Amino acid sequence: MGLGKTHPSEAVSPCVESRSVIDPDTYFDHNQPPSNLQWAHTATQAFLQQQPASQRVVLITSGGTTVPLENNTVRFVDNFSQGTRGSCSAEQFLAMGYAVIFLYREKSLQPFNRHYSDSTKGLLSYLELSPEGEVRVKPEWADRVKADLGLYQRYVEGGKLLMINFTTLSDYLFLLREVSLLLAHLGPLAMFYLAAAVSDFFIPSHIMSEHKIQSGNGDLTLRMNQVPKFLGPLVKNWAPECFIVSFKLETDPLLLGPKAKYALKKYGHQIVIANMLNTRKFQVWLFTRESDDAFLIQITKEQLDAGRDIEQDLVEELSKRHLQLIENTKLDV
Amino acid sequence: MGLGKTHPSEAVSPCVESRSVIDPDTYFDHNQPPSNLQWAHTATQAFLQQQPASQRVVLITSGGTTVPLENNTVRFVDNFSQGTRGSCSAEQFLAMGYAVIFLYREKSLQPFNRHYSDSTKGLLSYLELSPEGEVRVKPEWADRVKADLGLYQRYVEGGKLLMINFTTLSDYLFLLREVSLLLAHLGPLAMFYLAAAVSDFFIPSHIMSEHKIQSGNGDLTLRMNQVPKFLGPLVKNWAPECFIVSFKLETDPLLLGPKAKYALKKYGHQIVIANMLNTRKFQVWLFTRESDDAFLIQITKEQLDAGRDIEQDLVEELSKRHLQLIENTKLDV
Repeated sequence: MGLGKTHPSEAVSPCVESRSVIDPDTYFDHNQPPSNLQWAHTATQAFLQQQPASQRVVLITSGGTTVPLENNTVRFVDNFSQGTRGSCSAEQFLAMGYAVIFLYREKSLQPFNRHYSDSTKGLLSYLELSPEGEVRVKPEWADRVKADLGLYQRYVEGGKLLMINFTTLSDYLFLLREVSLLLAHLGPLAMFYLAAAVSDFFIPSHIMSEHKIQSGNGDLTLRMNQVPKFLGPLVKNWAPECFIVSFKLETDPLLLGPKAKYALKKYGHQIVIANMLNTRKFQVWLFTRESDDAFLIQITKEQLDAGRDIEQDLVEELSKRHLQLIENTKLDV
Repeated sequence: MGLGKTHPSEAVSPCVESRSVIDPDTYFDHNQPPSNLQWAHTATQAFLQQQPASQRVVLITSGGTTVPLENNTVRFVDNFSQGTRGSCSAEQFLAMGYAVIFLYREKSLQPFNRHYSDSTKGLLSYLELSPEGEVRVKPEWADRVKADLGLYQRYVEGGKLLMINFTTLSDYLFLLREVSLLLAHLGPLAMFYLAAAVSDFFIPSHIMSEHKIQSGNGDLTLRMNQVPKFLGPLVKNWAPECFIVSFKLETDPLLLGPKAKYALKKYGHQIVIANMLNTRKFQVWLFTRESDDAFLIQITKEQLDAGRDIEQDLVEELSKRHLQLIENTKLDV
């Protein structure tokens, strides 16, 4: 096996020796905030202030986080995620009337732009020079670009879509906390839709290699610490009144249900959306604390091939449940 | 220390136990070729056949390679590289009259398109709806897009630019070998410009974790094997008559010169371009076997800020030396 858990006897530093996962607050003390943190705070505040009363707002996290292996970063561990779920869901939430804060990994898919993000194509592949020498969108793309551009401009200029970008795990966590604390003021009107693929392991900055790791001496062993689970403080301290939806992606089907239920029990939030890597585009299961059975949402392979996004059904279902929570909260008061 | 070499007592499989780096041929036996290998072979062959006699051709490799940590890949190790050096150099080589095969990492920068690849912007950010409701390029981008689109179309349609994409280390190595064997027929007319950031370590597929690595049990230890050095077989067996330029990127200045000289001595190719992570955009050093001193190419910070690319000077210098090699080869015959 090339992969395995460390044994205590292999520990090589006090940090690794302890075996225990650090406290989330300790994580923030030991890591540097991203350069866009202050901007994100101000922009989110302004974004929320301009929304009408009882506007529902969703924070969507999308894409993978990187974990640097060196302080002068040449290498990093990344999570597979293009941001398809998040970017597509953002479009659906906007269509349902939500204001959307889109916290996304740089270079991952963005709402509306995602249709023009074929990884082997650049901007110029969508354009051509007319016989008169004018730049125009190629005829086969023209209608679609026009429609998407109209929506994109309407939502961005209309103050319904705010985009905030991250790259590393650390960037992501600082930004998540910052935005969460601001959203908390909305209480149940705010939904969290935590679709980002967040790394489970990291190398703490202070024990990281300063320079590029050298090859030439044989094999390499990387010891990584477990990332503290931030869903705990998010649900309990940062945004306790909000509607929180987390995701669980697995490749082993036997782990999917148990892990989703465990997360609900441990963190006490509203919904876990469970999905398998290979079938995530046409099958997702909603787990809640209220029921032992999962609520299945699925589309057929034919619908998928015809261009239907499962996120449409998923977001409609979540919106319905979110409205219920808002109603119930009003009744409780 | 979170990073360290394994000790023999920690070895957990025969592969890791051996300590030795596997043979390049063994690597190909143990890994799957990428799905675009046959296409790349045919496309390269057709591309080369349509070139005029004595056309100089350069293979540029660009961007980083990924190394999967799981067979059902959720996580992977990546190398920091946007592909700036490679994509910018491709434009310069085309301008110097070369035919360019651009072997690049998906989503990394591409020639001409690179100017519209701001990682926080999508296609729609460059477009607007005119008062008449027509899609057009925003005025501030219009001239530049028109110029780049003209060049891009001319080179692609004129058969001077072939793009081949890869993602993983394994994809890259299979494609490199395939294209190299075809380019070898050109002898000294072919240049290799190996700017890709290739991983030094990998986890062999047969000892990789089948499913997503689970967190929740504490720390994670990853044992990675060293990737065999493919510059050896490239120089010696795949393309022995060609003009080969490799790169050495470091963050520790004390290692830069010694490592560049060591590579030249070990592999016996023509040029190593040495550069530091932090100054690579305005300083590069050319090392050759003929001289103990490096040939410095640099631009000022002011030139850089004014939009000058050091690749212009670098490619001019390489083109000159390439012509010399071609001339010398003719004299030798």
